Amino acid sequence: MRVLGVDPGLTRCGVGVVEGTAGRRLSMCAVGVVRTESGAAIAERLVHIERGIDGWLDEQRPEVVAVERVFSQHNVTTVMGTAQASAVAMLCAARRGLPVALHTPSEVKAAVTGTGRAGKDQVGAMVTRLLRLQSPPKPADAADALALAICHIWRAPAQHRLQRANAAVRTPGPASGRGAGSSKGSTV
Amino acid sequence: MRVLGVDPGLTRCGVGVVEGTAGRRLSMCAVGVVRTESGAAIAERLVHIERGIDGWLDEQRPEVVAVERVFSQHNVTTVMGTAQASAVAMLCAARRGLPVALHTPSEVKAAVTGTGRAGKDQVGAMVTRLLRLQSPPKPADAADALALAICHIWRAPAQHRLQRANAAVRTPGPASGRGAGSSKGSTV
Repeated sequence: MRVLGVDPGLTRCGVGVVEGTAGRRLSMCAVGVVRTESGAAIAERLVHIERGIDGWLDEQRPEVVAVERVFSQHNVTTVMGTAQASAVAMLCAARRGLPVALHTPSEVKAAVTGTGRAGKDQVGAMVTRLLRLQSPPKPADAADALALAICHIWRAPAQHRLQRANAAVRTPGPASGRGAGSSKGSTV
Repeated sequence: MRVLGVDPGLTRCGVGVVEGTAGRRLSMCAVGVVRTESGAAIAERLVHIERGIDGWLDEQRPEVVAVERVFSQHNVTTVMGTAQASAVAMLCAARRGLPVALHTPSEVKAAVTGTGRAGKDQVGAMVTRLLRLQSPPKPADAADALALAICHIWRAPAQHRLQRANAAVRTPGPASGRGAGSSKGSTV
């Protein structure tokens, strides 16, 4: 499975591509950051992020895009920009028919470090070890994007089982795959 | 000036096109709502909104797009979806090189009714009168979109003067129009 992880942000959008399957070795394909000028108009910044994400999708050809689920409880001054950047990332992926998965920050931390309360350094250290890198990817947004991709690879089998079970409950009779895609990531 | 007003929302995105200039008669060109299924995945809903807004831009050819500025103080459960829908509207416009203007809900209410605390009914009644309609546009999101467009037409001359003055202060020497576009709508 080849996954593009996106840690959304208006100023810095972390992006990282990881390939692998649950229980096997993972490998990093690429990592980086899409940046926009904090002084530019918001609409221009969103266009810039769209171009950046589209470039990553064109070049890296992931099968799935995993985006951090944004909560409004977060820092109020940045949460709106984060929500808007995440909207652009989801749009770029869904427009191409790519499945979009959302994971909360604590799901990502728990998957990668074993605890949902891990700090940035701990996440960076585990990403470095799991992907056998020389040093933690900088900035932290880039490391977080890789952590999201890893989290998705590890959680996806369990998520699929859950979705299939839900779909089977919702549509009695012959099992169909229809419910799986539409129930994924239905919360904001 | 032909303005597309967008009242962003995930479930209902109000859209309305108004033509006119400040101090002259205004006329409504079109009004409607882009709807998405509340049960669908968020990424699919954003793609649907993108298609809807692009359709309105293709058909109505506005010169400016006015979008409601979203605040995080609003209803916490809906604010994330509103921010994401507004991101899509801004993106659709800016990608075509159309200027995007943001107005707060109280700026819109004050422009149309004279008070920033006006209710939905009051806004609907004034929109109906100003555009000489038979009855208030339904749902309220559609009326709000028209109110945004009217607000922009009336506020634009003052905003342009301010932007020119700011640009002149920032770039001493021969006046240039550069500052005007980039300073517009720089807040989320």
